[in-house]
Amino acid sequence: MTRGDPTPLRSDPALGRVLVTGGMGFIGSNLVRRLDGLGADVLVVDNLLDGQGGNPFNLHGASPRVRVLRHDLRDGAVLPGLLEGRDLVFNLAAQTSHLGSMTDPMTDLSINVTAQLQLLEACRRHAPRARVVFASTRQVYGEARRLPVDETHPTHPLDVNGWNKLVAEGYHQLYHRVYGLRTTVLRLTNTYGPRMRVRDARQTFVGAWIGRAVRGEPFEVWGGEQLRDLCQVDDLVDAFVAATAPALEGGVYNVGGASAVTLRELADVLARVSGGGYEIRPFPAERKRIDIGDFHADDTLFRSLTGWRPRIGLEAGLRAAVDYYREHLAHYA
Amino acid sequence: MTRGDPTPLRSDPALGRVLVTGGMGFIGSNLVRRLDGLGADVLVVDNLLDGQGGNPFNLHGASPRVRVLRHDLRDGAVLPGLLEGRDLVFNLAAQTSHLGSMTDPMTDLSINVTAQLQLLEACRRHAPRARVVFASTRQVYGEARRLPVDETHPTHPLDVNGWNKLVAEGYHQLYHRVYGLRTTVLRLTNTYGPRMRVRDARQTFVGAWIGRAVRGEPFEVWGGEQLRDLCQVDDLVDAFVAATAPALEGGVYNVGGASAVTLRELADVLARVSGGGYEIRPFPAERKRIDIGDFHADDTLFRSLTGWRPRIGLEAGLRAAVDYYREHLAHYA
Repeated sequence: MTRGDPTPLRSDPALGRVLVTGGMGFIGSNLVRRLDGLGADVLVVDNLLDGQGGNPFNLHGASPRVRVLRHDLRDGAVLPGLLEGRDLVFNLAAQTSHLGSMTDPMTDLSINVTAQLQLLEACRRHAPRARVVFASTRQVYGEARRLPVDETHPTHPLDVNGWNKLVAEGYHQLYHRVYGLRTTVLRLTNTYGPRMRVRDARQTFVGAWIGRAVRGEPFEVWGGEQLRDLCQVDDLVDAFVAATAPALEGGVYNVGGASAVTLRELADVLARVSGGGYEIRPFPAERKRIDIGDFHADDTLFRSLTGWRPRIGLEAGLRAAVDYYREHLAHYA
Repeated sequence: MTRGDPTPLRSDPALGRVLVTGGMGFIGSNLVRRLDGLGADVLVVDNLLDGQGGNPFNLHGASPRVRVLRHDLRDGAVLPGLLEGRDLVFNLAAQTSHLGSMTDPMTDLSINVTAQLQLLEACRRHAPRARVVFASTRQVYGEARRLPVDETHPTHPLDVNGWNKLVAEGYHQLYHRVYGLRTTVLRLTNTYGPRMRVRDARQTFVGAWIGRAVRGEPFEVWGGEQLRDLCQVDDLVDAFVAATAPALEGGVYNVGGASAVTLRELADVLARVSGGGYEIRPFPAERKRIDIGDFHADDTLFRSLTGWRPRIGLEAGLRAAVDYYREHLAHYA
């Protein structure tokens, strides 16, 4: 995969001692690898919970400087040890499945809300000067009333996961305003690339598509006309690093992707780069009830404050993902 | 206290078998007494948690038809027994102190969010046809960007309690949309009247004022220029009964009060009816950070759908409250 010049990041040059929660997951592990390459002192915590995105193989080949702890953040007793002395927290630990949040809402609540509030309380006590970058989601907007969706759009989630992520980002903002915690919230759109979960759609439908395409099976496209913007994970990692800039503290920022495409257009690109095929299916009823319809983000604010922009086109990004899973599928089966 | 004609309620004439959560609290107990008077079969559940509004004396003199169970809704095991066969749930159990939600955020979360999600999950299974009226709060709006505040105003709470109530009302709406639960959300403004907590400001500052006024001590007014609308609890009980109308299902409605007053105007009325005095004090720092500033609700939508309107003027309402606590203060000390 060819990439353009690196994004001109205005983040602190010295990232210092970093904690990445959910650091063996899809986005988390890509971020950890980048930080490791930048020479940062990285501590990873992940619960490797079954059905979530954590996968030890995601950190395969990282330098010995990366320390990995298997803990569940819902166990508040581990938090002081994780936070003490940290300059920066990338807070990515989450339950990410929308449908999963409906079938097991209490687990989503415990991971996405209760553990988050505990973490912020522990930050107040044990790392009050640490910068905290929280991974939220465009799911907090619910159905888009206008496109593209900027940060002033009303927040009215359509599933338990969306409500839980909304309150967690609310806590992050509140702890900035009331206690001066240096928090920044990013609202992510659909992300794809190496190290995502591809055995099912628990992280995003794109993962399930790639998994089937790489196995030579046709993937299923539900509907097909919905608009989405997609962000390649290396671009998103750039955005996380850029989000450490002090000017962003206290704010909430959309991070979108390249230009919006319909699911059918996306499927055509994936079919082309993988040599596979797909089938159009009607939307399953239990997903239709929590589907947000068309979405693409207006991330002008984040781009203007950081200089960030996505560099990786959809075709190059999907080709790189397919190549990655052709080589490593056994670790994601 | 003289009252006008009863509000022409469009609620179901037969309320049926009713559960009131938080039914020994301030608003809950006033509602239970009304339902009892209407001949309803009322089951009350309350945890009587120290520092909250529950008070056994609040149901003193209720008929033997009112059954009272002391349970904590955070114990999910009690929910099937509470819900089985219920036609109507008035869901008022809550942690209500804004400052308390900052000093003990995990308790606020467990009561106002975790227990609420459990309750809705249990409703799906054990009372899927019950109507559920949820007591939310104007605190979900945060600082008013325009006055009066209607339901389209952005929701951006300024304290943990506000975020937690917001997500709980979000769950109520979501469970209506996805599962057809017959939920209705009311966003309450400051409420006052007999049976409120008056030993401190954990329910509202008005309680603390009345408590001191009745004890012959000057009450403290912080600032004094902030606008508030206040709802007398008998009016609010009318609103809860009116909110059972099927046309309101799935919606979120402000329930405001009489016309807005400044805290100083309110203090003057209370001083006049109680014969006491007050002192103006600067806003304490830890409260200033979570104060919402001026607020009064636009509840046109609720009024137009139900015919409800507040009947009890501020002076008559405060006089009745002072009379109540002059007689019963020992039970609220």
